[in-house]
Amino acid sequence: MAHLMSTSCSIKISSSYRPCGQPLSQDRTVLPNSFTIKTSKSPFKRLVSKGHRAGRSCVVLATAAPVSKEVSANPRSGSDRSPNDSSKPQRVMVIGGDGYCGWATALHLSNKGYEVAIVDSLVRRLFDHQLGLDSLTPISSIHNRLLCWKAITGKTIELYIGDICDFEFLSETFNSFEPDAVVHFGEQRSAPYSMIDRSRAVFTQKNNVIGTLNVLFAIKEFREECHLVKLGTMGEYGTPNIDIEEGYITISHNGRTDTLPYPKQASSFYHLSKVHDSNNIAFTCKAWGIRATDLNQGVVYGVKTDETSMHEQLYNRLDYDGVFGTALNRFCVQAAVGHPLTVYGKGGQTRGYLDIRDTVQCVELAIANPAKPGEFRVFNQFTEQFSVNELAALVTKAGQKLGLDVQTISVPNPRVEAEEHYYNAKHTKLIELGLKPHLLSDSLLDSLLNFAIEFKDRIDTKQIMPSVSWKKIGVKPQTVPAN
Amino acid sequence: MAHLMSTSCSIKISSSYRPCGQPLSQDRTVLPNSFTIKTSKSPFKRLVSKGHRAGRSCVVLATAAPVSKEVSANPRSGSDRSPNDSSKPQRVMVIGGDGYCGWATALHLSNKGYEVAIVDSLVRRLFDHQLGLDSLTPISSIHNRLLCWKAITGKTIELYIGDICDFEFLSETFNSFEPDAVVHFGEQRSAPYSMIDRSRAVFTQKNNVIGTLNVLFAIKEFREECHLVKLGTMGEYGTPNIDIEEGYITISHNGRTDTLPYPKQASSFYHLSKVHDSNNIAFTCKAWGIRATDLNQGVVYGVKTDETSMHEQLYNRLDYDGVFGTALNRFCVQAAVGHPLTVYGKGGQTRGYLDIRDTVQCVELAIANPAKPGEFRVFNQFTEQFSVNELAALVTKAGQKLGLDVQTISVPNPRVEAEEHYYNAKHTKLIELGLKPHLLSDSLLDSLLNFAIEFKDRIDTKQIMPSVSWKKIGVKPQTVPAN
Repeated sequence: MAHLMSTSCSIKISSSYRPCGQPLSQDRTVLPNSFTIKTSKSPFKRLVSKGHRAGRSCVVLATAAPVSKEVSANPRSGSDRSPNDSSKPQRVMVIGGDGYCGWATALHLSNKGYEVAIVDSLVRRLFDHQLGLDSLTPISSIHNRLLCWKAITGKTIELYIGDICDFEFLSETFNSFEPDAVVHFGEQRSAPYSMIDRSRAVFTQKNNVIGTLNVLFAIKEFREECHLVKLGTMGEYGTPNIDIEEGYITISHNGRTDTLPYPKQASSFYHLSKVHDSNNIAFTCKAWGIRATDLNQGVVYGVKTDETSMHEQLYNRLDYDGVFGTALNRFCVQAAVGHPLTVYGKGGQTRGYLDIRDTVQCVELAIANPAKPGEFRVFNQFTEQFSVNELAALVTKAGQKLGLDVQTISVPNPRVEAEEHYYNAKHTKLIELGLKPHLLSDSLLDSLLNFAIEFKDRIDTKQIMPSVSWKKIGVKPQTVPAN
Repeated sequence: MAHLMSTSCSIKISSSYRPCGQPLSQDRTVLPNSFTIKTSKSPFKRLVSKGHRAGRSCVVLATAAPVSKEVSANPRSGSDRSPNDSSKPQRVMVIGGDGYCGWATALHLSNKGYEVAIVDSLVRRLFDHQLGLDSLTPISSIHNRLLCWKAITGKTIELYIGDICDFEFLSETFNSFEPDAVVHFGEQRSAPYSMIDRSRAVFTQKNNVIGTLNVLFAIKEFREECHLVKLGTMGEYGTPNIDIEEGYITISHNGRTDTLPYPKQASSFYHLSKVHDSNNIAFTCKAWGIRATDLNQGVVYGVKTDETSMHEQLYNRLDYDGVFGTALNRFCVQAAVGHPLTVYGKGGQTRGYLDIRDTVQCVELAIANPAKPGEFRVFNQFTEQFSVNELAALVTKAGQKLGLDVQTISVPNPRVEAEEHYYNAKHTKLIELGLKPHLLSDSLLDSLLNFAIEFKDRIDTKQIMPSVSWKKIGVKPQTVPAN
């Protein structure tokens, strides 16, 4: 799968243009006319002078001429926080900043006054091409996204395109950007993707584990005070028959007591890769004094944040397919297109969920309240628990209000998981840091459903049904579209 | 580090020869005159016919002409056991069968009537070359080892030389040999090696995790009834302040109870790789019905087994250096050469230990009593607990009996570990299956010390001191010798 990670970057500047404030057409290559592309002198020069690297990684600093007064930024949200209350803003590197959670987070942090750089190989976009999938929303190129952001807000987000499994590339990004915090979303993040075939399983574990190891080494070598904020998943815990704590559990056994890492029972090669990461990070905190926060995130839903709503070129991706789509988002798209909601098995599978607006809030809270040197801190990052059946009922009700005829079908469960089980996971630490949850509400469901209806013509119904089986995964590469 | 795994095999047949019964000279390329090398028709033809693979992997079946009557096999040990008591012997693939534990195990199983194949990339020998290390004992090439074994016992051990991270190679070994059980020693097994530099850390995790994933996929695809016997390590558990159970612990928490995987706290990138493996295997047992036994082995000491003692060409390796050597073996070699025993830090570090004769016994017991389909069974494989200080005292006493002046020095601990701690690990499951432990005795220490004295002239004292620091590991490749 090495070819998947061989990325290169080229910037095409179209002579046609459309002001950033106007609606986005299907032509995604246009750039606003008030922009120019400049390259950051130091990183670009370094890469250009070493021509052999040009095909592998690329560092681009997108800047722009002063923004037209007609294009004004949305006001900042009320919870504006200046990092560390110092005059110099914190520098945050968002690895995987072109993805679903990463993009929203990068914009949010930039909007809040952090100096932000995105590091991304863009391989997530390649996965879509290879599997014949596409986001419900049309998404702009990362270059256009950043130019638009600059045009609207006047804020620059640096861009480093390359693979963090390539340590030479990662070293250059560290030495160029000098981050105070690294938010690491840069992993293959789909459980079904990791269960397509042997090569995807191996790719997922290799990519995620080695990438994270490289980040740890880069922090140790170049930025030892840097705070690592790592995205984990609630799926690391599985579904134990006891309450799930936040990372650790105190166990009394045979008359003695210790507080130990909470036992993990991951249920896909993807979820396992996150467990491997957590264990590796915990070790480096102890051995090297790394400061790290592991955010065990629940299932994220929603698409809009304050920042991605500012312009269509800033829209976030919304996945509804059987590989990358997650439960609630998928149900809304299914309802919009008149497809029955696909409940896997009995539907009693219960998980933690959160609004993407809370994802960006949680990450900011973690950055603003960093772990201590040597501390491996674990937060369970979700706001509410739902079973799949409960979600289906909520979407059905919301759909009916909009005049949709929403049916539900039970699909044979492609996963290996308990379909009826106890589930009670703690999630108080982020609340204690100040998280104000956006609980799932009728209005959010209305908004999601209407959003799905708006882009209904882009829906490929062949992508809806699950196509990856936990039990049928084989060794032959699956080169056909997943659906 | 890909070059490390690019192995090729060539067989040189010298015109000089020395019968297997005669002492081994420094010339390790000679072959006994009564041997011929034949190649297994099916695998070899397949490889030869696909010339592009020849440089990457090689399948060799070493066979021999009838053994001279002057060379007789040692009698089998009394605990002879026919696998499953059926007429057809079980076929056991020993991955990593050229290494310290793997070689002893392969011979033991062959001697017990199992049909054995060794799968090995021989990369362990390359590590020695690269780091300027060598076994205390002169060890023969794997080809000569197997020819000698055939000459002495009449038993054939098949040999597949290649890298299990290469799934095409592994597939061929599975389809050619058709194992009933796979014993998987085929990993980078040194904690200090994994802490030399970034590339060795990454190599260790990639090699171990991907190799094991490939084995799991090979079993699922080609031999679903095959029992995986995987070597783990007691080091996966770390040193919790409560008793260590065998793989699982029953936890009561907030009024509910569940039996969960025992929490792991590994303390090197090597130990972490074993934790990753355990988690991956547990998942595949649940998802695919793989039958697996995870042997969490303690620190192995000793060098002789019934089988490796039969002839010098069958001698096992004995590592005494700071990278691959383990506590008790190192102390004996240090005592033999008059080097002070090197106690790291306070010396209160307590671990489980076992004689290599018990390693081979335990593996056989696991094979003869396989896990059920879907079962992930964990055995703690050691027989006694010692602190480093206790080991030093035992070796000091045994050395004095032999007239050696044994001193002990405290060396700054290169590792990050508790030097005084509670430690009580359960280890009853293998006893219940019939393990008859060889407890550490004066006679074993005498034998080990005398063995070390016999090969004293081969000792390179520069290899003795620890050269790898857990805290100082960096990103630059360490190409110089480790000492």
